[in-house]
Amino acid sequence: MNLESLNTPAALIDVARMNRNIDRMQRRMNALGVTFRPHVKTTKCEQVVKAQVAAGARGITVSTLKEAEQFFASGTRDIVYAVGMAPAKLPQALALRRQGCDLKIVADSIACAEAIVAFGNEHQERFEVWIEIDVDGHRSGIAPDDNVLLDVGRTLADGGMHLGGVLAHAGSSYDYDTHDALVRVAEQERSGCVRAAERLRSAGLPCETVSIGSTPTALTAEHLEGVTEVRAGVYVMFDLVMHNVGVNDISEIALSVLTTVIGHQREKGWAIVDAGWMAMSRDRGTQNQKHDFGYGIVCRESGEVLDGYVMSAANQEHGIISRSGAPDHEIEQRLPIGTRLRILPNHACATGAQHPAYQAVDADGTVQTWPRFYGW
Amino acid sequence: MNLESLNTPAALIDVARMNRNIDRMQRRMNALGVTFRPHVKTTKCEQVVKAQVAAGARGITVSTLKEAEQFFASGTRDIVYAVGMAPAKLPQALALRRQGCDLKIVADSIACAEAIVAFGNEHQERFEVWIEIDVDGHRSGIAPDDNVLLDVGRTLADGGMHLGGVLAHAGSSYDYDTHDALVRVAEQERSGCVRAAERLRSAGLPCETVSIGSTPTALTAEHLEGVTEVRAGVYVMFDLVMHNVGVNDISEIALSVLTTVIGHQREKGWAIVDAGWMAMSRDRGTQNQKHDFGYGIVCRESGEVLDGYVMSAANQEHGIISRSGAPDHEIEQRLPIGTRLRILPNHACATGAQHPAYQAVDADGTVQTWPRFYGW
Repeated sequence: MNLESLNTPAALIDVARMNRNIDRMQRRMNALGVTFRPHVKTTKCEQVVKAQVAAGARGITVSTLKEAEQFFASGTRDIVYAVGMAPAKLPQALALRRQGCDLKIVADSIACAEAIVAFGNEHQERFEVWIEIDVDGHRSGIAPDDNVLLDVGRTLADGGMHLGGVLAHAGSSYDYDTHDALVRVAEQERSGCVRAAERLRSAGLPCETVSIGSTPTALTAEHLEGVTEVRAGVYVMFDLVMHNVGVNDISEIALSVLTTVIGHQREKGWAIVDAGWMAMSRDRGTQNQKHDFGYGIVCRESGEVLDGYVMSAANQEHGIISRSGAPDHEIEQRLPIGTRLRILPNHACATGAQHPAYQAVDADGTVQTWPRFYGW
Repeated sequence: MNLESLNTPAALIDVARMNRNIDRMQRRMNALGVTFRPHVKTTKCEQVVKAQVAAGARGITVSTLKEAEQFFASGTRDIVYAVGMAPAKLPQALALRRQGCDLKIVADSIACAEAIVAFGNEHQERFEVWIEIDVDGHRSGIAPDDNVLLDVGRTLADGGMHLGGVLAHAGSSYDYDTHDALVRVAEQERSGCVRAAERLRSAGLPCETVSIGSTPTALTAEHLEGVTEVRAGVYVMFDLVMHNVGVNDISEIALSVLTTVIGHQREKGWAIVDAGWMAMSRDRGTQNQKHDFGYGIVCRESGEVLDGYVMSAANQEHGIISRSGAPDHEIEQRLPIGTRLRILPNHACATGAQHPAYQAVDADGTVQTWPRFYGW
């Protein structure tokens, strides 16, 4: 199979770019002296994760127990489920551990810790639990200096569970776009999580793992003293949001959506394509960033950027391609019906999720289909 | 299976509400003297379409050839593929017709019409083609008074294809929120499409079908003289965008996402739930409407609306629930960990697409799983 034979729309992975992205992150983690645990929520794809592990990744991070089940079935044992544990999901986590999966779960409240202890003791299972730390106020977790941290730690340890470590994610790093600001957020993520670990240890509690990470902070942190591992997901593909944040060039984006021109509105300077928001996702992550790229940047089928053209609007299965600034009244001649284009997405995690499979394009233009899964 | 036994997140259909929505639309179409052809892109679900057909729908509308293939396989013959035909997809359309599917395809340019004629003649297939009419400038189609209309009609008819009719979709109706404005857009959709049909007929060309429709215009049109059929999709579920447009009450929304509280941030008045944008979609369609509902309106598991609470932010597998206005510092007591909630979505087409199946909840609380498909 080759690029020319693919139906549209299709989610393409530029395999050479993906491998460069994987190498770049792994080399950085090696240099910083930490292990690397990729977040597989970005691709949910066995072939991608295999490449991450081959490059040196140690274990994976998941956002759903379905991801844990699927990747355990395909041979990964060391898995962190990095979303606060809902008590009703404990039987699913137990089943995974009973099958031999080294699954770690996460808690950030006494209520959650108590539920884990009660269920674990009822079923004679010593769950490994990491405590989620809030380093930037963006979502979940316990602030490093909050006394609830020690209460949760004691609840777990005294209750017979394995208190394995602390975990933080500086999701607020997505809101910045200068190197200096990212360096500051990265240091805040590192120091906050290390401080939480030290408080637990000072209280006589175990805390072996100190796990942090987001793509922007992983790529800008100046040192990672006290940290044992880093997690990141979107770096494997990169996207336009990360480009605006400042951590990748457009030429490093490994994911694109292949589409075909199906019509025009000459007066308006529009070409209409067969990729709408169903193929791109509804993610408008660049809307409030320094460059708003609409639903994505337009490239030739070869991957060459078509300067100044974006997908400016999208319906379910229609995308509107237009030039920024003055309308291109010659767009019908420039991009006739049947022309194939690639669209670089705002957000690789969201765009990938719309597709049952990636089409992995090698440097010689040959294509392999890499399935991905979805759902819960 | 019942509601209490479902894992979260899950996409719920309130079957009684769905059936009322179907009946409302079908009764209206019967009263207006037109046939009704539902757009199945909203649900891509056999059981939903079966209910639409049982209520009186005649044929279906699809947005992808995969939808045509799947619904033809489950027994529907009369199908309109309502997206401009990409020449490279003609073999797929041919295969469907050769299997006995009464597939209609759409063109809005001479280039497209010529490609259909060339391919049809090469394969001795007399494709039925409808010409897409642009009634409101929102996307594709030929303006009713544009002379290209007759050129496309002649290209198809002289080339031996079956010129079956004209088709329009007043997508701009989504931008209005008063009854009077919707009545005007509906009349513009009707009169523009009828005018195009009359011009074709005056030129000696056939034009049996005059097909229009969008949920807002279908529900507000005062008469449909000259129209033979109406298409609409989202009416079967309704959503918050349509509520803001003014065509449904919140109590008529049949789709919701079931989710579980997994944490809190007391100071901020947040409850964190296990449905993020992966379960809701990234659709923020109410953002620029008269009421911005964030990622959705929060209800109790029973479906009762929790006044003033919305999903105000979302990450991939985390949603943040908060009260509009002053933070609810008692949210931890009000919605403790493990509480199950339903979120009413902005856009039923986008939210449904994130889920491999619907969980169809009957009035007595019993649940059936209704699969849906995705991809191209």
